[in-house]
Amino acid sequence: MILRYDRLGLEIPSGDPDPAGAMAVQELMGGRFGEMSTLMNYTFQSFSFRGRRELRPFYDLIANIAAEEYGHIEAVGATITTMLTGADAREIVTNGNPAHALKAGKGVLPVDSGGAPWTGDYVFSSGDLVENLTHNYFLETGARNGKLKVYETVDHPAARALTGYLIVRGGVHQVAYARALELLTGADLTKAFPMPRIPTEKIPECRPHLERGSHLTLYRFTPDDYQEVVAVFKGTHPETGEDLRVEHPAPEGFPWPEAPAEQDVFAPDYALHEIAEIAQTLRRQAGFAGDAARHAA
Amino acid sequence: MILRYDRLGLEIPSGDPDPAGAMAVQELMGGRFGEMSTLMNYTFQSFSFRGRRELRPFYDLIANIAAEEYGHIEAVGATITTMLTGADAREIVTNGNPAHALKAGKGVLPVDSGGAPWTGDYVFSSGDLVENLTHNYFLETGARNGKLKVYETVDHPAARALTGYLIVRGGVHQVAYARALELLTGADLTKAFPMPRIPTEKIPECRPHLERGSHLTLYRFTPDDYQEVVAVFKGTHPETGEDLRVEHPAPEGFPWPEAPAEQDVFAPDYALHEIAEIAQTLRRQAGFAGDAARHAA
Amino acid sequence: MILRYDRLGLEIPSGDPDPAGAMAVQELMGGRFGEMSTLMNYTFQSFSFRGRRELRPFYDLIANIAAEEYGHIEAVGATITTMLTGADAREIVTNGNPAHALKAGKGVLPVDSGGAPWTGDYVFSSGDLVENLTHNYFLETGARNGKLKVYETVDHPAARALTGYLIVRGGVHQVAYARALELLTGADLTKAFPMPRIPTEKIPECRPHLERGSHLTLYRFTPDDYQEVVAVFKGTHPETGEDLRVEHPAPEGFPWPEAPAEQDVFAPDYALHEIAEIAQTLRRQAGFAGDAARHAA
Amino acid sequence: MILRYDRLGLEIPSGDPDPAGAMAVQELMGGRFGEMSTLMNYTFQSFSFRGRRELRPFYDLIANIAAEEYGHIEAVGATITTMLTGADAREIVTNGNPAHALKAGKGVLPVDSGGAPWTGDYVFSSGDLVENLTHNYFLETGARNGKLKVYETVDHPAARALTGYLIVRGGVHQVAYARALELLTGADLTKAFPMPRIPTEKIPECRPHLERGSHLTLYRFTPDDYQEVVAVFKGTHPETGEDLRVEHPAPEGFPWPEAPAEQDVFAPDYALHEIAEIAQTLRRQAGFAGDAARHAA
Amino acid sequence: MILRYDRLGLEIPSGDPDPAGAMAVQELMGGRFGEMSTLMNYTFQSFSFRGRRELRPFYDLIANIAAEEYGHIEAVGATITTMLTGADAREIVTNGNPAHALKAGKGVLPVDSGGAPWTGDYVFSSGDLVENLTHNYFLETGARNGKLKVYETVDHPAARALTGYLIVRGGVHQVAYARALELLTGADLTKAFPMPRIPTEKIPECRPHLERGSHLTLYRFTPDDYQEVVAVFKGTHPETGEDLRVEHPAPEGFPWPEAPAEQDVFAPDYALHEIAEIAQTLRRQAGFAGDAARHAA
Amino acid sequence: MILRYDRLGLEIPSGDPDPAGAMAVQELMGGRFGEMSTLMNYTFQSFSFRGRRELRPFYDLIANIAAEEYGHIEAVGATITTMLTGADAREIVTNGNPAHALKAGKGVLPVDSGGAPWTGDYVFSSGDLVENLTHNYFLETGARNGKLKVYETVDHPAARALTGYLIVRGGVHQVAYARALELLTGADLTKAFPMPRIPTEKIPECRPHLERGSHLTLYRFTPDDYQEVVAVFKGTHPETGEDLRVEHPAPEGFPWPEAPAEQDVFAPDYALHEIAEIAQTLRRQAGFAGDAARHAA
Repeated sequence: MILRYDRLGLEIPSGDPDPAGAMAVQELMGGRFGEMSTLMNYTFQSFSFRGRRELRPFYDLIANIAAEEYGHIEAVGATITTMLTGADAREIVTNGNPAHALKAGKGVLPVDSGGAPWTGDYVFSSGDLVENLTHNYFLETGARNGKLKVYETVDHPAARALTGYLIVRGGVHQVAYARALELLTGADLTKAFPMPRIPTEKIPECRPHLERGSHLTLYRFTPDDYQEVVAVFKGTHPETGEDLRVEHPAPEGFPWPEAPAEQDVFAPDYALHEIAEIAQTLRRQAGFAGDAARHAA
Repeated sequence: MILRYDRLGLEIPSGDPDPAGAMAVQELMGGRFGEMSTLMNYTFQSFSFRGRRELRPFYDLIANIAAEEYGHIEAVGATITTMLTGADAREIVTNGNPAHALKAGKGVLPVDSGGAPWTGDYVFSSGDLVENLTHNYFLETGARNGKLKVYETVDHPAARALTGYLIVRGGVHQVAYARALELLTGADLTKAFPMPRIPTEKIPECRPHLERGSHLTLYRFTPDDYQEVVAVFKGTHPETGEDLRVEHPAPEGFPWPEAPAEQDVFAPDYALHEIAEIAQTLRRQAGFAGDAARHAA
Repeated sequence: MILRYDRLGLEIPSGDPDPAGAMAVQELMGGRFGEMSTLMNYTFQSFSFRGRRELRPFYDLIANIAAEEYGHIEAVGATITTMLTGADAREIVTNGNPAHALKAGKGVLPVDSGGAPWTGDYVFSSGDLVENLTHNYFLETGARNGKLKVYETVDHPAARALTGYLIVRGGVHQVAYARALELLTGADLTKAFPMPRIPTEKIPECRPHLERGSHLTLYRFTPDDYQEVVAVFKGTHPETGEDLRVEHPAPEGFPWPEAPAEQDVFAPDYALHEIAEIAQTLRRQAGFAGDAARHAA
Repeated sequence: MILRYDRLGLEIPSGDPDPAGAMAVQELMGGRFGEMSTLMNYTFQSFSFRGRRELRPFYDLIANIAAEEYGHIEAVGATITTMLTGADAREIVTNGNPAHALKAGKGVLPVDSGGAPWTGDYVFSSGDLVENLTHNYFLETGARNGKLKVYETVDHPAARALTGYLIVRGGVHQVAYARALELLTGADLTKAFPMPRIPTEKIPECRPHLERGSHLTLYRFTPDDYQEVVAVFKGTHPETGEDLRVEHPAPEGFPWPEAPAEQDVFAPDYALHEIAEIAQTLRRQAGFAGDAARHAA
Repeated sequence: MILRYDRLGLEIPSGDPDPAGAMAVQELMGGRFGEMSTLMNYTFQSFSFRGRRELRPFYDLIANIAAEEYGHIEAVGATITTMLTGADAREIVTNGNPAHALKAGKGVLPVDSGGAPWTGDYVFSSGDLVENLTHNYFLETGARNGKLKVYETVDHPAARALTGYLIVRGGVHQVAYARALELLTGADLTKAFPMPRIPTEKIPECRPHLERGSHLTLYRFTPDDYQEVVAVFKGTHPETGEDLRVEHPAPEGFPWPEAPAEQDVFAPDYALHEIAEIAQTLRRQAGFAGDAARHAA
Repeated sequence: MILRYDRLGLEIPSGDPDPAGAMAVQELMGGRFGEMSTLMNYTFQSFSFRGRRELRPFYDLIANIAAEEYGHIEAVGATITTMLTGADAREIVTNGNPAHALKAGKGVLPVDSGGAPWTGDYVFSSGDLVENLTHNYFLETGARNGKLKVYETVDHPAARALTGYLIVRGGVHQVAYARALELLTGADLTKAFPMPRIPTEKIPECRPHLERGSHLTLYRFTPDDYQEVVAVFKGTHPETGEDLRVEHPAPEGFPWPEAPAEQDVFAPDYALHEIAEIAQTLRRQAGFAGDAARHAA
């Protein structure tokens, strides 16, 4: 079970509408190496984990990284929705993914950059722990490749902030799976870092995260479980030689960006004010004061 | 972002291996109306929600139910893995889903009862709030239908416990979306309850949940967000007339069932003891005492 | 069984070639909420209808609406083919759906706006009548949403005439399923009309149909069957308060628009005149005089 | 547009429940060479037909055969639903297509014998008339192959009656497309008949149709259009040497078989009598006397 | 088993980068009628061929043509990679197939012009020889249609050279299957040539191949097997009346075009020189002198 | 281009018909980790290889292994066709893959064990050499897992012989890609061998191949290209410490097993003798003596 909180792992900057860019960023959501894939691979591996009792540190590692990945699909989702705010529906049809206008109310969908839906076929969960870890390492490597390519082809500040963030966090997971594999078999995949061979520090949008040590840190995204990750996530970082560390709780995060109404696609309604009025009445009846902004803000 | 905790919403009883039943229960995981669909529909609707500020109670409702659904894919996952424990690989091939033996290490996969993978095409997220709520009501209705049909065709105690649990919890979501729609438009779908027209209380495995009032209760699966759900989830239950209520925190849950090694599918290894020994060493190095069972247990 | 007649439900105006628009209108053909879906959902529900004897009015309603939907795929098909007449093949590749040039001879295909083929997976036919009606209501609602979005993004007069027509006729089906559901359960979904909340009368291309009362009328598309639809399709229209009515026979319709040859895609041939000459000879041999235009015209 | 009438092209005999057979017969519905494919190929070719004015006899041929194919999906649909009547839901899961129990209320679905949904990708509509006719000949040939294989593997009397009927009617379409191709190009494909090389008259269930000359006759399924088919469908039958002929109107057909309620899958309801009572009341209010059987019967 | 040699069937000219053209040419790789389909249809038919001993000439024909088709996917692959050399990644996203930039390192993928992956569903292998030959004739006909349409819509010299080559070679296969069918059944499909009705000699890029008689020649792509193809591939060419012939060995071919590094997509690396240096060292250690160009050149 | 020869890499023993086993072995053909995937991944990577001149040893390695994989799809194909010989069509429908009877004439199809077609989506070709090699190592690892699981669940002697052969040959490719990666990056994946952790020598059907040193040998499947593989495939075998070696030419192989006619699925015809007689006449006309068995035998 999970507890969800209404925060994102990074701040999403606004920018000009960018339908083509939004189409490209979808690769990081619904592509074979997108965040839906990392989320669901680790999630299903945790469901099918056999020998949990005997192999607890490895179970904890996979289950905990799965938890972080949910935050990553949120981050990609918020980015794409932001990039579509204010976009012209006709331009979305000709230069972007038509579904963003015709189906999704200028919002994100679980599809890739070509519009193909994410599929459960992308989940690898063989039951064999060493095999799964090898897969996970490869998956994170392919994911890093995808993020770097999106970084190269999309200029929108939200996309850049997103990829900077994901490259650093994905790098931590790449290290985690390589280390787990090394501890079980002796094969040291960290020697192949960085893969692709672009040093993370060359990317300006990665630097704030590097400065706060995010590249060294596995956060436990849990009230108080998955404590045994420390038995695996340890040693030094393959690129910097700094010590790896596990932190709890995870950073607090940032509020979701505003996503204003887009009347030409009836989102959230052809006439927002009518249903907003109902919402205000319901809020008052329930004892909430002020406007309907985030309660705890 | 989420915090995941290592507990399930229900206790999963063990039973005899049941490959055909496990194949059928997959419908509740990866089918069009399975838990992957409820999870991802509400999740993506929360990513694309426009007018969050003005319509906070509805956003909170959808985002919070999304959080509960993650627990439901866990529950289905644990059930299927349990039903496959001890199953003969040959029997899985002839009477069940061959992938359970040949790909998944006798574990769950994100596929339906016919083996077709779940697809992002199952996500409806139009941006139009009233439309989305109508969809969600219909989705929960189709999900209830699916659960009841699985209940009728599978005898394994884990499947029965699972469907009993999910029918009650899904019923709460059905009420929630019907009520939201009613408050926005005046259309009262609760008059069609129960749909399918089988009273929940006739199902023995539902009764324990009814007795503790689970059918009346929306839990907030969050450290402290989504407080405005109370503005929508209110009034009386359409079948019993009892008052609906919102509770926080959600119930603590139950530990995951054991999933022992299955050597003939190399899960978690051809020789568990070899990697288990490595795991024990790592645990000791990290300061964990005793066997590698759940730390907090 | 059916009798097909060589007429369309509306007159399709010509206009400038519009490859991007044609790509968008495909959503109304092969999308999850397109006319292939309405046609095939009701068609298959009629094939699997259990209790036909006892529930004849509901069977008649579903089977008869299925019949009208065949005319709708014709209308969408004629529109798209018209929009592609005269289009430059290179422009189709860069701005539209490449398949319109490379596969389809500048004609319609059973795909959506992203080029994904319609799939039988879009058919919902649970066997449960109340469930199916709920689905059908939701399907018509999603279809109305899709038509309105295409209306907003495509200017071609054929697309505008088409959506004006389909919005009105789909609205009748939306009312029909809502009323059927109301009569069986008491839940009154018509209170949510219009959904999306754009009054039909605001759309200029809808007005001619409204003026002749098409929005109030269920036509029986049958030589003389499905008479019991009157037992369900009755009462008043939720938006206008006018009386609903059933008419037989359906209006006569309009001839198909011309679709001239497009030599660069070899449709109907690289050299039309050669095969046209053969056709003329065959016609004369069979006793048909004049040119090969529609016989009964 | 079409007029649908509530009759089938053949009488569907009842028999013992046969889940495995029903699964196999689905190939004739949703397989690449099933009736959905013949229906939709000719339907879409008629939508995209360029040069209709100059090539009327060929347009009429394709459009008219499309009309008959709708009757064929009805026939397959009624057969499969009949074969599932009385089937045990558990047996459907283990020996048949689980979706028949878990999704379809023991009714037909638009899928093939492996459960894969029919897809618009099966439609070939190139715009090139000679090419389309070549395809259509090949499609009918593949369809005949499929029908014969189902005949060989399924014993249920409904399946046998169905395949006997479809083999004869499909044979007429095979002749029609071969003749059209011969008239346009001189290539005489009828020399390859029968393909597969099993004489139709060897199949007992084909004989009643042969005796009434159905194998020689193209029916015009239209109130009064498609008159120019006679310019193409002419000459002698390649196997018997008898004269081909066009008839209008088509034979009257047979009533649909009963499809009684199946309570364990809630079709049409968990408790039929409750909704049947509502239906009776509605019928009486609308002036229909007697039970809710077919009005015109 | 095969022996592969590092040569192509034609010389691939270079040209300006053409992302939209490369997207279109993908239809000839991964489309239903692309070279993946011809390769895999004949390959699988050879695997499932029953009665090989009795029907050797037909087996040899199919197995040998399969061998040539592998060379055709190479030719399409080299063409697309060439067309993408030097293309701007952003332009690929907006005007071409985004996957060429985001996934494929500016290289070819097994997808069609809409980005949909080639699927095994395109393979027809019924076991019935006459049926398979009919299919193969139709497949080659559809393939010729596709090549001609790509020829019409893409100007890049590599695409023109490719289609000129494939139209001639595919024409030979069209003749081969028509002749095989004629010999088995008497049906003479060559009367329908050319299909589409564009004479091959009108296409400038076909002429060099016609001049060397490639349109008359079936090459045996084998060290010394498939000798009995001569029993079927014989007689005269339907368009020119010249004698058909079988040749062995096949022409020597041409070297692959250069495919220089594309740093912005990390192909073959972010910094080519680093891994190139390793490669040189390895070559020297293995005794290879000079630069790492083709050894036997 | 390739030269194909009519031989298999192993001798396929006959056995009792085994429809369920044949269904399972399809995983090795059309599954994500089947031989279609290994073949097409390496094939497409060779098409898109950038920097071929500078990185020749790595290009040669990938292109040459691609060549061997074609022989592996042949081997799987021959095995499945053999396992279906003599199978009862009804039993295929209930216990196996219905398509084997209804579509494929008791022959192999490009599908997996669940009947899902192989898809181009399984091809990974990023353009980044280190990335591709990482993928290829992982792919071979997953393939080994799949082969071992099929070995465990299928008893048919053809399936056992096949998996014994493929495990050894796939192991060579696993070593080859690990070594290539090690030479480029220093990361030594061979330390993880064997993966899954079942020593190859424990499998009786592997032993004959081990005895002749097949596990140490990369064959060059080419007339005389790909010579630079020796620069990469070198050093010692990670499990045995023996020296790796490259051999040319590859072993001669074995004849294809007989695949007799199966009349109930019309393969190769309803009446073999009729078309066999035509084939004999054609052979005699072409100067071939004796029966139509393999010429060179």
